[in-house]
Amino acid sequence: MDEHQKIAVLGGGSWATAIVKMLMENLDSIGWYMRNEQTIKHIKENEHNPKYLSSAELQAEKLDLSSDINYTVNNYDILIFAIPSAFLTIELNKLSASLDGKTIFSAIKGIVPETGLIVGEHFNQHFNIPLENIGVITGPCHAEEVAMERLSYLTIACIDENKAENMAKAIQSWYIKATISDDIIGTEYAAMLKNIYAIAAGIAHGLGYGDNFQAVLMSNAIREMKRFIKKVHKMKRNINNSAYLGDLLVTGYSTFSRNRMFGNMIGKGYTVRSAQHEMSMIAEGYYATNSAYKIKEENKANTPIIDTVYKILYTNKNPKKEFMKLTNKLD
Amino acid sequence: MDEHQKIAVLGGGSWATAIVKMLMENLDSIGWYMRNEQTIKHIKENEHNPKYLSSAELQAEKLDLSSDINYTVNNYDILIFAIPSAFLTIELNKLSASLDGKTIFSAIKGIVPETGLIVGEHFNQHFNIPLENIGVITGPCHAEEVAMERLSYLTIACIDENKAENMAKAIQSWYIKATISDDIIGTEYAAMLKNIYAIAAGIAHGLGYGDNFQAVLMSNAIREMKRFIKKVHKMKRNINNSAYLGDLLVTGYSTFSRNRMFGNMIGKGYTVRSAQHEMSMIAEGYYATNSAYKIKEENKANTPIIDTVYKILYTNKNPKKEFMKLTNKLD
Repeated sequence: MDEHQKIAVLGGGSWATAIVKMLMENLDSIGWYMRNEQTIKHIKENEHNPKYLSSAELQAEKLDLSSDINYTVNNYDILIFAIPSAFLTIELNKLSASLDGKTIFSAIKGIVPETGLIVGEHFNQHFNIPLENIGVITGPCHAEEVAMERLSYLTIACIDENKAENMAKAIQSWYIKATISDDIIGTEYAAMLKNIYAIAAGIAHGLGYGDNFQAVLMSNAIREMKRFIKKVHKMKRNINNSAYLGDLLVTGYSTFSRNRMFGNMIGKGYTVRSAQHEMSMIAEGYYATNSAYKIKEENKANTPIIDTVYKILYTNKNPKKEFMKLTNKLD
Repeated sequence: MDEHQKIAVLGGGSWATAIVKMLMENLDSIGWYMRNEQTIKHIKENEHNPKYLSSAELQAEKLDLSSDINYTVNNYDILIFAIPSAFLTIELNKLSASLDGKTIFSAIKGIVPETGLIVGEHFNQHFNIPLENIGVITGPCHAEEVAMERLSYLTIACIDENKAENMAKAIQSWYIKATISDDIIGTEYAAMLKNIYAIAAGIAHGLGYGDNFQAVLMSNAIREMKRFIKKVHKMKRNINNSAYLGDLLVTGYSTFSRNRMFGNMIGKGYTVRSAQHEMSMIAEGYYATNSAYKIKEENKANTPIIDTVYKILYTNKNPKKEFMKLTNKLD
């Protein structure tokens, strides 16, 4: 990746829109793929996304919008995927264009449900993208605050330091600071696991636990995350860096997090099905819980919080009783 | 300390009242010193503290209340100090009774302003209490949630494991879990430092920084706390345990924290004096900032957050400009 390589964003949601906005501060032209032609038309005419992050101003003349994923893949070198993990496979199935030689950045905070892999691993194993061409964009970052241009810190991970640095340059601005990292596996697992802990925080809240317990839960969650990630990819990392602990906190303490909201409904007695129905969507952490549970079983990691959420969401166990048991495993 | 030693609480505020409530779950008789005779009368007649934590039910027949600190010190073996650090010296000056052979637990989250020492060190250096007779009661714990009997986790630190365990037994109940630790210095510094970080969180909020930045600030704060404590007392500890990280989070994320509120006013443009006047009290973290700054200078610890708060509170620097500089030192 050199500075002249062309960058595109794939996805039409809040986070995709936020990334486009960040790139627009530095680049004159950005590729942007999204399914919905109506939305594209609206953006071209009104310079904002009508459905997601609509307060963010977009400069239409800088955007090469397309509803054809093959057009975008063919014409851009660096592809930032910001499609919800549940829809990634549907989108990738449309691909006839080759991904050879492309650099893939994952801005997806979840697991690919069909393969149970984090996105980087999915591209590596199923699309033969070499690991040095895979990157991760993560950080404690609500898209809404990017729209408001509130100072946010992102972490750009790539084994190829050059690629990470160029992406950092493309994305940073007066309200975005970007740090680089070589931990593509750890940062992506952290981004996925934090959604499970946000569900746990929501369940606890729904059950009536208070702020004292929430602090204990988050303090145990970061230790559990450290053990989990160490098992799947051992390397030197400081789990208290923003990409891990910061990301856990921004989600675990956010009352706007969909995962936390979903957990809250479970804690209040909704079934999984009725909570999903009520939210008219499926929280990313729901799939993440199933995958993380399998991975931790394979790797024999000690993860009492993930186990508890798994039992409640997938084996129909009683939230109140399971949390009572969990409280004895925390300290 | 054996199980038959008698325990007293010194202090009449919310945290003192919460500790009395916790002990009442296990003990038949508790000594309780507080200055205010009117309050003592009220507690005896109405079974709750009129001024602080008034929702907590107290069983008057279990309480040996006194407004004479010498009576309480003479008649009890284990003394839990829960007096705000700003008033500790005034109270200790009243002492004619000897502290020889007493076990002192500090439940004070601050620094003794007159000596710049944490409470354990103050008793050790100025009252010749041997370190093995000094303990700390800490944890992520709002007193209000103890009154509500919401599950909370405390850490009881003492070099003498036996003393820590007996205190843990005395204080734990169906809504309190107590863990023991031998890190009396580190846990007490953490309890003090977290108030400075809560002020920082408040200033950031007052200046208009959002949740993304708050997560980065807390992630940097725990790393800074680790460096600081390692410099003053190096030993094996997991900074992500509840007594350190949990305590930081419960305060740093609490909108009710007096320290955070104080910081918020500073961020909004109040002077230190006017913020203190408005709050009609001085936040513990205000003194802690001055002491921590001196200690970090002596120990050459790298503490950009403490430095920033110090410059704003004590050298009249502009909060907005200082935070701009700080944001470049965080990651």
